[in-house]
Amino acid sequence: MSHFGNLSGDCLRIREESPIIHNITNYVAMGISANGLLAIGASPLMSSEQEEMEEISAISSALVINLGCLERLQIEAMYIAAEAAARSGKPWVLDPVGAGVSRLRTETALDLIGTYAPSVVRGNASEIMALAGTPFRQRGVDSAEESLAAAESAAALALEHDTVVSVSGPVDIITDGKETIRIFNGHPLMPQVTAMGCTASAITAAFLAVEDNALEAAAYAMALMGVAGEKAAAKSAGPGSFAVNFIDALAGTSPEEISELLRYE
Amino acid sequence: MSHFGNLSGDCLRIREESPIIHNITNYVAMGISANGLLAIGASPLMSSEQEEMEEISAISSALVINLGCLERLQIEAMYIAAEAAARSGKPWVLDPVGAGVSRLRTETALDLIGTYAPSVVRGNASEIMALAGTPFRQRGVDSAEESLAAAESAAALALEHDTVVSVSGPVDIITDGKETIRIFNGHPLMPQVTAMGCTASAITAAFLAVEDNALEAAAYAMALMGVAGEKAAAKSAGPGSFAVNFIDALAGTSPEEISELLRYE
Amino acid sequence: MSHFGNLSGDCLRIREESPIIHNITNYVAMGISANGLLAIGASPLMSSEQEEMEEISAISSALVINLGCLERLQIEAMYIAAEAAARSGKPWVLDPVGAGVSRLRTETALDLIGTYAPSVVRGNASEIMALAGTPFRQRGVDSAEESLAAAESAAALALEHDTVVSVSGPVDIITDGKETIRIFNGHPLMPQVTAMGCTASAITAAFLAVEDNALEAAAYAMALMGVAGEKAAAKSAGPGSFAVNFIDALAGTSPEEISELLRYE
Repeated sequence: MSHFGNLSGDCLRIREESPIIHNITNYVAMGISANGLLAIGASPLMSSEQEEMEEISAISSALVINLGCLERLQIEAMYIAAEAAARSGKPWVLDPVGAGVSRLRTETALDLIGTYAPSVVRGNASEIMALAGTPFRQRGVDSAEESLAAAESAAALALEHDTVVSVSGPVDIITDGKETIRIFNGHPLMPQVTAMGCTASAITAAFLAVEDNALEAAAYAMALMGVAGEKAAAKSAGPGSFAVNFIDALAGTSPEEISELLRYE
Repeated sequence: MSHFGNLSGDCLRIREESPIIHNITNYVAMGISANGLLAIGASPLMSSEQEEMEEISAISSALVINLGCLERLQIEAMYIAAEAAARSGKPWVLDPVGAGVSRLRTETALDLIGTYAPSVVRGNASEIMALAGTPFRQRGVDSAEESLAAAESAAALALEHDTVVSVSGPVDIITDGKETIRIFNGHPLMPQVTAMGCTASAITAAFLAVEDNALEAAAYAMALMGVAGEKAAAKSAGPGSFAVNFIDALAGTSPEEISELLRYE
Repeated sequence: MSHFGNLSGDCLRIREESPIIHNITNYVAMGISANGLLAIGASPLMSSEQEEMEEISAISSALVINLGCLERLQIEAMYIAAEAAARSGKPWVLDPVGAGVSRLRTETALDLIGTYAPSVVRGNASEIMALAGTPFRQRGVDSAEESLAAAESAAALALEHDTVVSVSGPVDIITDGKETIRIFNGHPLMPQVTAMGCTASAITAAFLAVEDNALEAAAYAMALMGVAGEKAAAKSAGPGSFAVNFIDALAGTSPEEISELLRYE
């Protein structure tokens, strides 16, 4: 099967429809994810308050649940929002930040996956390996394993839960357990900036809002991230300016540029 | 009546007196608002902890209550701080982020306005229309209506609650219901950066700390925002660099430049 | 005694070992501290959830407790983490943001110091004077006193609690009460950017993770901050671009450059 056929149309649809993306996310990622979503034309909405979860779910086109700064009160909001998404058939992305770091994170992630069937689970190699039960060397919330090493775990996790798993890293792995797309774009400055993975999850949700094929949507998001990362790195003096140029690049990268610069198999 | 007469003096007073601006605000806006306040010479202080609300109110010159990431615990702190501001006659700004998105937000905003009489209500068109009970098309927390369409709602809301309403948008509307100032400065990149409206609210509070006329104070803030936005856009490659250049422009724009570049009626 | 002997080796060790630095910090500082830690090669981990404090303490090499946006729930996590650090002999830094602003902040800071003996207390002049019981003029959480005026308070506080006190300001003061290092690097743009002090605390923790001598570790952090600040200021148009260039400078400053540009006594 050939891929990336709807990339151009989906980029346009995001700009035209400005889908509302509801983010239950961590404090570090909030601003960066919001700016990333605005840069591609989507409408970010951040809320973790239980009392308004149902109303916000009703007006959102997709949901991101990010375990970054996991807190008890936030977890309850996550369950309400995930349940609402599952009930209404709305696409949602789980970003299991720090899975493997604590039992609370690993168990919350696995329970949300098992109960509410996310469209895409997007994490780094350590997190995906932790969720798949594969042993790995723990290095905090930043992945120390190369993402290729996580490819088997990703496929197993995707098959077991009938979902798409997207692993960011030097090589991005996007798999539904049967088919796997590998994207070779990106730049070493990307993991030197906090919350880049969280931004990838938010952008994945934006593509899911306009694209029914979750494997494709997840791949489009990583393709855009990787190409924008390369463009930004070319004009950056370090991770500080890279973070700024990356938002410019997200806003300024056309579907044609992505097609031209994309390297995948 | 002619306007902007105290703009120059008020800009200087903020730098000389460095008024402490207490912000109860959302997680996205905290850093940006703090940097915006520092850039114009004010002293930001962020706190939402009930136990210290009274002490912080006592040393602050103005207050901002921003409903961005509304949470139950934060709402209680908002009421303590608003009550303290009302009791001591201290100016305060309400930023009703997401009013109309959920009942919790709309009702909290209206109750705070009705009970504690903010000096200025600063929002975007959707939010102000929601508070005035005007029907509108909901597009998340970013305003989809043009601000001009909200002018009538703003005037009605201002008259009903004897306050000043400041609506940011392509044209900024500042009104006390009897008199209306329209500011034409600004740039299309501004709504592409998250929390720019929140920063406008924080800067409005800084002007209120040195200016008794709330209509003027709110207009000065929007004038500075608009002119700084134009200066920043002129040297920016996209929304990422714009956000950075905007803080530089806030710090580097003199009252003379504002007077020179300001377009209003 | 001569100082800065291990600076070069410690910078390298941080890059080689990527120590996990656990931050219980405020919402404004989270992103900036994380990017600062990543820029020098450390692994940031932000968490304030009580349920995972023990597990996170177990995998971290050092801890930062920052009172920035102090909240009741967060305070309980702080005590669990500080107790775990004290019990296992792990280095930790207290950043008493806003000490003197409210009783809650001052008392929480003093109680954490008295009970769990931080390796370093890093604050600005006002905060250190508040903790030492020295009268001062309150200007919010930004220090209005020059740091030199706080030198006596710092030494007294360090002696009383057998700790190292690091006061950032135009002149940085690092003291254990017996010996005092003064660092003259830095730039006036630094206090115009929010959370620069919080970043200094995070970087202090990174040096403590690889350096047993707490006085040296605290001085290395302030030396790196000051030199990076000077390098960043040289290419910045205001506080916005300074904040960006500062992260670039943290990533791009070699130990040799620090030695060359460092001014201290």
